[in-house]
Parts: sequence; structure tokens; C-alpha cells
Amino acid sequence: VIGVRTIDWVDGAVEIIDQTALPQQTTVLRLSTVDELVAAVQTLAVRGAPALGVAGALGVALAAGQHGQDEERLRHAVHLVETARPTAVNLARGAQRASARLADGPDAVLAEALAVRDEEIASSAAMAALGADLVTDLCGPEPRLLTHCNTGALACVVGGTALGVVAELHRRGGLGGVVASETRPLLQGARLTAWELGQLGIAYRVAVDGAGPFLMARGAVDAVILGADRICANGDVVNKVGTYAHALGAQRAGIPFLVVAPESTVDMSTPSGGAVEIEDRGADEVLAFRGTRTAPPGADAVNPAFDVTPHDLVTAIVTDRRVVRLDRGERL
Amino acid sequence: VIGVRTIDWVDGAVEIIDQTALPQQTTVLRLSTVDELVAAVQTLAVRGAPALGVAGALGVALAAGQHGQDEERLRHAVHLVETARPTAVNLARGAQRASARLADGPDAVLAEALAVRDEEIASSAAMAALGADLVTDLCGPEPRLLTHCNTGALACVVGGTALGVVAELHRRGGLGGVVASETRPLLQGARLTAWELGQLGIAYRVAVDGAGPFLMARGAVDAVILGADRICANGDVVNKVGTYAHALGAQRAGIPFLVVAPESTVDMSTPSGGAVEIEDRGADEVLAFRGTRTAPPGADAVNPAFDVTPHDLVTAIVTDRRVVRLDRGERL
Repeated sequence: VIGVRTIDWVDGAVEIIDQTALPQQTTVLRLSTVDELVAAVQTLAVRGAPALGVAGALGVALAAGQHGQDEERLRHAVHLVETARPTAVNLARGAQRASARLADGPDAVLAEALAVRDEEIASSAAMAALGADLVTDLCGPEPRLLTHCNTGALACVVGGTALGVVAELHRRGGLGGVVASETRPLLQGARLTAWELGQLGIAYRVAVDGAGPFLMARGAVDAVILGADRICANGDVVNKVGTYAHALGAQRAGIPFLVVAPESTVDMSTPSGGAVEIEDRGADEVLAFRGTRTAPPGADAVNPAFDVTPHDLVTAIVTDRRVVRLDRGERL
Repeated sequence: VIGVRTIDWVDGAVEIIDQTALPQQTTVLRLSTVDELVAAVQTLAVRGAPALGVAGALGVALAAGQHGQDEERLRHAVHLVETARPTAVNLARGAQRASARLADGPDAVLAEALAVRDEEIASSAAMAALGADLVTDLCGPEPRLLTHCNTGALACVVGGTALGVVAELHRRGGLGGVVASETRPLLQGARLTAWELGQLGIAYRVAVDGAGPFLMARGAVDAVILGADRICANGDVVNKVGTYAHALGAQRAGIPFLVVAPESTVDMSTPSGGAVEIEDRGADEVLAFRGTRTAPPGADAVNPAFDVTPHDLVTAIVTDRRVVRLDRGERL
């Protein structure tokens, strides 16, 4: 299934692999309306910064097809797509790229959306090569890597960001081991990254999120490598909650902390992480697990979906075009 | 139920509240043999450093009653109790205190075990008072506290260590809020601490373990307060996995990181945390959740039950007898 695209345009509709059903079931969802696409984004049936960029662009293509004659409804539909999730810059950016072509008609919008898709596919391959070279430079042969959340093909279209680098190191025969941080509350690491690593034939161990910094302290990890939902102008990284704690662990252990994300994730209009709205996804994700309530009645929860890693904790940012060594004073 | 003792000696057997069944069910388990007691310790039906000290002492009392005439079987049974879990110093220490009286017969062993129990009860009250004074000194009125794992009455006999301090601040009318870190993999925070806070009438929010450092960075937490399974001679703290990541977060946020534990947790014979064997509790706890498998077939996991927080990250250690301000250069 890794060869299949996580998100694509098929016969006039958007098709996605439903990531909420993995790893138990591999289900393809067909999204024919803006409402269906927005719901898929909000339930995380499709997730991952690059994939969300494609979802945003294809969502506008759906809107153009649905509401091409009604400018007000069209504008409303585009707004729904852009704002389906607040934190990831790619979603709004993909939607904006496609909607810039609205005046040229639905076919032009779709062509632009497919260009977004094709660029994300090309960027995965570029990041994998640049990232694998960097890891080898920094860690030597057989690095043991820790990753958080899911940054593989499922987060992109094919390939991946950070997990694409892991896969590339494996293809080169130079991978020493992988720890997949489980990524509560939705377990993207234990479910999705584990599933992708299994498909790739890469041995791995899952760890609870709280164990990562300790594994680093005990010398069991040579570098942390993960993705980003938004990279601010000063190098601050907005990514899945738990990222910042891993960055603190890497700093204390003196190991590299590497962020891999396409250029489309870099947002020079956001000066720093302090300015970013962090989505709170509500108490239910934390307090219940697949329908089983874990906390007692009356419990409340705080559930930030993302956190901010200050740029001084980031060794390097790898994009599809460049390696920015923040540890050497380089800037975006 | 908070008024009930988590572990006690009742009519010739050990009775415990089964912590694996909370918060759904409040069940009392009656343990009449060493094997039953060891199983309860290993499945975490009874857990928490102070409660384990009492379990160790009462376990030897059971052994003395079962095998009083057979020195070899008695020695074997005592060994099983002492080594039921490797990391917590209290278990072995409680067992050793009781077994030092074996030559005087079962009644003397039981009397010593009950003295261990009574001392833990007294020490909870002393820690609550010392800790609440310290938090008020450091944070001023209405502190918002983050705690990890479970350190309340369930971890002790009554009262608690860190959660006893939280309860005392609430009684004094000076608590600004509580975040309970859920504590994967076994969710002692989301299940047990949440349940105890509810019983105490204290409002709280559960957070995933990875969110704590970010909540600190955003100014939502005034201090971290938690327990210890072992405190080393140099002040290194061995506690539930995830503790170290929270300590790194507290340091970066510039807020106090407070450890509350009875003197029986201080182990001057262990020079530092590097020397402590950390129990790996196996993959199943991480990969499955209440019988539901989360990871794909073939997944492996690394599951350290504890981690080590270096002493330089610890602001103060509060015991039943003293406050040791490591941040001011004080030593144990």
C-alpha cells in the first residue's frame, strides 16, 4: 500500500486512505463534496502537513466544481477548506494556491491542485536524499533514530518527510535502529509509523512519549528526526505535541535534533512560535480510547494538538531544497 | 474511599484496593499467601513507593505465617517478596525491616510490619504540611501545579506524597489548578490521580505526557510536583517514566520542580541514578490498551517503567522530616 498515494484525485473526486482505520483496516474514502473533505481533515482521516497541503488544494477544486456559478457559496466553501484546521500552514497555503485560479474556471483550479500534489511527490524524494546525507554526516554509520508522530508516505502523498529519510537510510543499508514514539493521544506513531515501518521491512520499537528523553540520556538514541506542521521565520518549529519534550531531551543528551519538512511548511510571515494559534482538540481524545473511557466521570482535559520547539533546540532543518544548520547560526 | 487504607492487615491477611480496576470499579483484594502478594505487586494492583514498602513488610509477615517452621522455604519466600519489582527501594526495605525480626517469630514480624504501615501514615501528614508550605513560599498564592503518575492515598496507605501536598493546599484554600499527566502506558494519572482528585472535590485537567513541557512553556503551570521511587545519595530521582521530560520542561520554563517522598525512599547506598537498574515491563503494556491492540502485528516496544532525573534539575526534595533545597546547594 506504500506504493499507493495517500491522497489523490480520481475520476472527479478526492480519494484518501482513511488513517483513522489503520493499522486494523486499509480503507479508501471517496470525498465528493467540500463538506466530506473538511470532515476528513477534522477527524484526521487525512493528516500530515504535506498531505494537508494537497487536501487544501483539491478541496478548492471540489468547491469550484460544486459552486462554480455561485460566487458567494464558492467563497464560503473555500473558507471552510482553508480553516478546517488552524495550525498547519500547508492546508491554507494549498487552498490559497488553488483558489488563486478560481477566475480561470474549474479546470484551471484542478490543474493547480494537481501541481501542488506533484510538487509534494517530488519534494519527498529530495528531502530523503538530503536528510540521509545529513544524518550520516552527523551520526556516522548505523545511526539509531527516534521519530515522533507520523511523517511517512501517509503524511505526504508518497515517500515522506522524516520517515522518508529513515527509509532512505534503510535502502542505503545504513540504519542502526528506529524508536517510534507512540504519539498520544491519537497514537500516530504506534499506529501509522509502526505500520509504515513494517511495510518497509524496517525493524523498530515503539516507546511511550515520556520515555524518549530517558532513552536519549541512556545513550540508546543517536539523533531525533521528525517533521513540522509549520516552521516560523526564526526557525521555531510547530509540530505534534510531544516534539518539544523530545527536543529538550536531545539537547541535554547532546544529540542532533533534525526537522524535515518541505519548503511549503516554512512560513516566513510568522515571525516566531509564540504567534501561532495552537489547536486544542478537546477532552475526548485524551479521556477515552477507542470508545473506552479511561478517566473517571467528571474529568476534564487540556489537549493542545501541537507544541512549539524554540529554534535554539533545533540542529538543522532539512527541506526539499536545502539544509539549514541552525546549530551553526544559519537562518531560514 | 479515600478514608479507607489502600493496603492494610485485616484478620490474618493483606487487603488492598485493586488499582488495576480503578476508576471503573473499587474492588478489595484479599491476599493470603506470598504468591498472591507478589502477583499483586507485579501486576501493579498495589503500587506507589510508600505502599510498596508496606506491601514488602506485610509480605514477610505472610511468609512468616506460611513457612515459620521451614527456614529454607521461608528464606525463599522473603526473597520473592523483596525482588518482586527491582526499582523501588521501599519494597525491599520494608521486607528487610520485617525480616530482621524473623528470629523472634511471626508475631514480632507482624508487629514490625504494622510499624512500617503506621510510619507511612504519619509521614504522609508530615510531607503534606512541609510541601504545602514550600509551594506557597516558592509560588505564592493559588499555584497551578502539574503532577505525574499517582502519588495520592492509593500510592501510600492514606494521604499521599505529592498529591498529599496538592490536597493540603486545597484544604488551605490556596490551590490555583491541577494538571494530571496521564502517565502512559498504564495511565496512573488519568485513572488513579484523576479519581482521587475527584473524590477530594478538586478540579483538574488531564494532559497527555507529551504536553506537560509545552504547557509550562506557555505559562500555564507554576510548579511541577511529583513523587519518587528511589532518591539516590546525590539527589538523582528515580521515578515513573516521563518524570525526566517534565523536569527538563520545568528547567527551561524556570519553574520549581519538587519531589515529595518519605525518608524511606532516600537510598544513600545508591550513589547516583546511573547505577539503578530500570525495570523494562515488556512490550504488551505499550502495544495494547485494555486488550485492544493498537500497533500492527510484528511490532516491538521498549518499555522502561522509570527514568532518572539528574539532581541539577530538582529544585527541592520534601520528605517527612525535612526540605532539601538542591537549588541552593543543600545535600541529602
